[in-house]
This record gives sequence, structure tokens and C-alpha cells, in this order.
Amino acid sequence: MKLGQATIKDIAKALNVSASTVSRALKDYPGISNETKKKVKELAEHLNYRPNAVALSLRKSKSNTIGVIIPEVVHFFFSTVISGIEEVAFANGYNVVLCQTNEKFARELSSIETMLDNQIDGLLISYSKETEDFNHFQKLIDLNFPIVFFDRVPEIPNTVNVIVNDFQGAYDATKHLIDQGYKNFAHLAGPKNLTISKKRMEGYKEALEDHKIDINPEWMFHCPEGSKEESIRIIKTLYQKGGELPDAIFASNDIAAAGAMVALKDLGYQIPAQVGVVGFSNWQFCSMIDPPLSTIAQPGFKMGEIATSLLLTCIAEKDTSNKEGKTVILDTELLIRQSSQK
Amino acid sequence: MKLGQATIKDIAKALNVSASTVSRALKDYPGISNETKKKVKELAEHLNYRPNAVALSLRKSKSNTIGVIIPEVVHFFFSTVISGIEEVAFANGYNVVLCQTNEKFARELSSIETMLDNQIDGLLISYSKETEDFNHFQKLIDLNFPIVFFDRVPEIPNTVNVIVNDFQGAYDATKHLIDQGYKNFAHLAGPKNLTISKKRMEGYKEALEDHKIDINPEWMFHCPEGSKEESIRIIKTLYQKGGELPDAIFASNDIAAAGAMVALKDLGYQIPAQVGVVGFSNWQFCSMIDPPLSTIAQPGFKMGEIATSLLLTCIAEKDTSNKEGKTVILDTELLIRQSSQK
Repeated sequence: MKLGQATIKDIAKALNVSASTVSRALKDYPGISNETKKKVKELAEHLNYRPNAVALSLRKSKSNTIGVIIPEVVHFFFSTVISGIEEVAFANGYNVVLCQTNEKFARELSSIETMLDNQIDGLLISYSKETEDFNHFQKLIDLNFPIVFFDRVPEIPNTVNVIVNDFQGAYDATKHLIDQGYKNFAHLAGPKNLTISKKRMEGYKEALEDHKIDINPEWMFHCPEGSKEESIRIIKTLYQKGGELPDAIFASNDIAAAGAMVALKDLGYQIPAQVGVVGFSNWQFCSMIDPPLSTIAQPGFKMGEIATSLLLTCIAEKDTSNKEGKTVILDTELLIRQSSQK
Repeated sequence: MKLGQATIKDIAKALNVSASTVSRALKDYPGISNETKKKVKELAEHLNYRPNAVALSLRKSKSNTIGVIIPEVVHFFFSTVISGIEEVAFANGYNVVLCQTNEKFARELSSIETMLDNQIDGLLISYSKETEDFNHFQKLIDLNFPIVFFDRVPEIPNTVNVIVNDFQGAYDATKHLIDQGYKNFAHLAGPKNLTISKKRMEGYKEALEDHKIDINPEWMFHCPEGSKEESIRIIKTLYQKGGELPDAIFASNDIAAAGAMVALKDLGYQIPAQVGVVGFSNWQFCSMIDPPLSTIAQPGFKMGEIATSLLLTCIAEKDTSNKEGKTVILDTELLIRQSSQK
């Protein structure tokens, strides 16, 4: 039996249940008994059933809709990317539908299912913090389905990606703090499994090495949540210990930086006189908080525009054999505000 | 010819073009000549063709997907509503797809088309600032299509709505400023065509009337953009005129309030000593800006949960004759921060 040849109907017929029951059992919907779910799933696996595979390979007509999957709409950066995506999509006669994963792997999988059920022509995706297995992307790529990754890109071959130069952005932020005369550096890093976290940490480290400043591994903290509360907790714990303390903090995102500022102010530290802080992303609030937060601006709108142009090209060339990967890297910009000017 | 009996195929056959051309012409996509678009549209009108009407009335199967149409994902309030929607939707085995209209009427229409093409089971919608004609909603309601409005609800009969008590929220904000001893009141109002703007203005006025404070119509400004720049412009123009000036500003949204604070600080006014400011919505940044902004918190998450529960009921009862309208009104909460404590 060839890949994807079994259909929901085949499974339904074999088990003498309705196609709708099979579909709902495979998606783990409520209202289907566990026994039925088990039977359906086992047979589906036995028959090598792959949801959407058949539909994807047989489908010829276009829906003129592109799907976008992002971790969180509340994240300012992603909302600017969406605006860029829509700009190019609408200008080319495409509509845009969005799903957010809320940083959950399970929701990422179900969002992709929903999108494919809805017959999108192509997919733009920035994956969740929980995603460590890229099989679901690999399957789509194997099926020659048009897909472009942005910001968070998987480490699999021949993908089309748009990212910002996270390494350089982090390097610039750290170098700026060094230039201002700060001496002891701490880093609030992003979640471990994201490439952007790794790149930003590398940029931070290389700037310090280039300027012969010690890297203190005890002052590097991974922030899996990326919430204000998390960094308040981390910074308070660190500064309440006493002894030698950092006088400069580079945070991998603005929310973490804002939390660090809250903690420092609560403890009576003056920013930027005693401690300098730089964030990453340039959320709306950066210019409004006290003191205004220096940060690395990411070209979100441009990222959305370019990712969409690339996706439309993938859609147009879908049936050709052109399967080369490509990564577009966009420059960031250091925005110097009061929080880091000693 | 009965409503909705003509199909795209009928139009295509009559004009000797492809169904895809007809579909794209009706949607004003690029790449179709104006002449063809004109011909297709005229015939479609003549034949009383209604996109989706046939599909909607004939469709029996469920997609277990609900559509959500909002003005802007970047708007913090809407992102909290989305979280509430997803909570209830996922718990009931539904997926959620989103479209944003960017406050544009044309995009609202095309988003609804896209959603219906994607076979959603029901729709949650908060309409755009540009929307003044509710015909597109009325058609869906006439077709008995499950739809629930939230936050911005149209003035048409028998709709199911979830709103917050905008009148009471505005009343509470204004009364709080009065209680703090401020005397001369200005109001930055929302776009004219939104019911929420009207209700908030009514609450503002009634609080002043109840406390025998004059309402100065020259100090009430509609802010169609709702941007920071817009309210900076308005407040600078007002305060640079000199003469008697307001010492209290109630803004219909937090962004406008934040802009007013920027303008006042630039002009050398002290907040809250000389001018008190209160916003509406409780965006994330309110607690982080200088001084922290007092505001009216809206229960966005709860609104999303309730709207979705109502929609799932509408979906379940779709084929019954139960067509009564219903409006759930949620309470707001006054959050007193530094910006308004004289």
C-alpha cells in the first residue's frame, strides 16, 4: 500500500462506523469512546493513513487563501509581521487566515490540520516554544506543499526561511553597553530550543570576548516563560544575594527587560546610572516606560512582506522541481534610549 | 428564480468563461480585465447570485472550526478575547481560525467570504471602524448562520451579543476624577460610528451632570485613528491655545490616554498634580508607563469565553426555530494608578 492511499472512508468501512466518527476519533474530539478511538487509530496506523496527504496530493484548485501560524497574536513583533503578510497577500488577491498556537506543540499540530482542511494554498509559520520535533513540517515539505518559515526556523534541510540577524543584533546591544562603560554583564536568554535564543546568546558572548570582558555563566539565565514576572523573580533573587553584581543586563526580549527594570527599581537601583538595560524587539511600550528602554528593533513588517513574496513564488512554482532551500536574513537596528546611557 | 439558485457555473456557462474566472471577477482579484469583471458582476446581479448562499443552505457536514473576525490583533484587548475564545473552543473540540480587518470595511467583507469558503460552523465578530452598513451581517442572520457579536455590536434586531458595560465604565472613570478634586473635564472619544464610543461618552457626560460639573463641548474630541500621535496632536493644540484649560482627561482608550500624557509632559505639565488622566481597556503597558495609567479594565478573556459558549449553543440549535436575540453585558473594573491620584 502506497503512502496516503488509505482514506477515512476505508477505515470507516473496515470498522463499520461513519466517516465522521473516524475523523473525530483521529482528532481526539470529545464524544467518541476511548475504545473506538483506539480501534480507529490502530487501523489508521496499520493502513498507513495520513490525514490530508491524499487531499494535498490530489488537490488542483486554488483557494487564494494563505494560512499563517504564529505563537501568540499578543506578541507585538508577530502582529507587525502579520501586517506585512497581509499587505503583500491582499495586493496579490490572496486572503489570510491566522491560527495561534499559544506556544503549544499540540495546538501547532491541530492548527496545521485545520489550515489544510480549509484548503489553504500555502503556509507561513513561526513555530511554538514547545516544538522540538519537526516531523510535521518535514511531511509537508515531502509533499511539496508551499511553506515558508519566519523568525523561528526549523533545523531541517531545504526550507525557505526569513529571519533577522539575531547574532548581530545581540552583538550590537552588548557592544553598546560596553561602549557606555558598563563592566559586569548578565544575560536574560530566551527558551533553550529556539534558534533565536542561541544566536542572541552567541552574539552576546562574542561581543564580550571581543572586548576581553569575562563571561560569567552564573549570570546567564534561560527564561522559558518570557514573562515580566519571571524576570522580576530572577533579577530579585540575583541582586538580593549581594556580593559582586552585574551593572549591565542584556535581555533577549523586551518583556524580560521590562521585568528586570521593575525588579531593579524596586530594589532601589538607578537605571541607567547604576545598571544599564537593553531589550530586544522594540515593543510599543519601550518608548513609554520609565526610563525608556533601549532595544534592538526587528523589521517585522518587512519580514512579513518578504516571507509572503517567497511563499507566493513557492505556490507559483509548486509543480516544478525547484526545491532548493533559501534563507533571507534581515538587519536589525539598535535603538538607544535612556535605559542604557550611563 | 429563487434566491441563491444561480451558481458560479451558471454564470460561467452563460458568459463562456471558466468558473475560476467568474469567482475571481466577483472577488475583484487582479489579473481579470475590467470588462470581464463588469460582465460577470452584471449577470451575477441579474441572476440574483449570492456567493455562499447556496453552499450555506445546502451544507450539512460540520467542520468543527469556528471563525473569528477582529479589527486588529495588535490591540491588546482583542488578543485577550481570542485567548478566551480558544479556551472554550478547544475544550469543546473546535479549532479557531482568525482574520483581521485592519479596521477596513472591504477586508471585513472579504474575511467573511474567506471564512465561509473555509466552511466554518459559526462566526464570532467584532466589526471594523469603517463599518456603517450591516447588510452583510443581516444576510448571514437571514440564512440562519450561527453568528455572535462581541464588543462592537451592530444595531440590528435579534442578534446575539456580548459587550461590556461601557457606559458604567466611563461613568466610574469620570466619577473617580471628580472625587479626586479635578474641576475641568476633557474627553478623548472613540470613532463616531462605534456604539462603544457613544456609550462611553454618555457615561462621561452623565457623571459630570450628576455632579453639577459643566460639560464643555469644545473639550470633547473624536479620535478616529485612536493612535498615540493623534492624541498628542489634539492635546498639544488644545493646551497651546492657553486660556482656561482642562485639568482632567478621560480617554476612551489607553493609547489615546498615553498620547495625552506624552503631550502634557512635553509641555511641562505634571501628572497627576496638575492634570489627571484615565484611560480605558487596561493594555499591558498601563502599569509600566510613567506615571502608571489609571484605567478601566475590560474582562476580555471572559468575553471570549462567553461569546464562544453562546456560539456553540447557536451551532447546536441551528436547525431549530429559536431565533431570539440576546445581549450579555459584562462589568468593567476601575483600576486606580498614579496618573489620576491628585
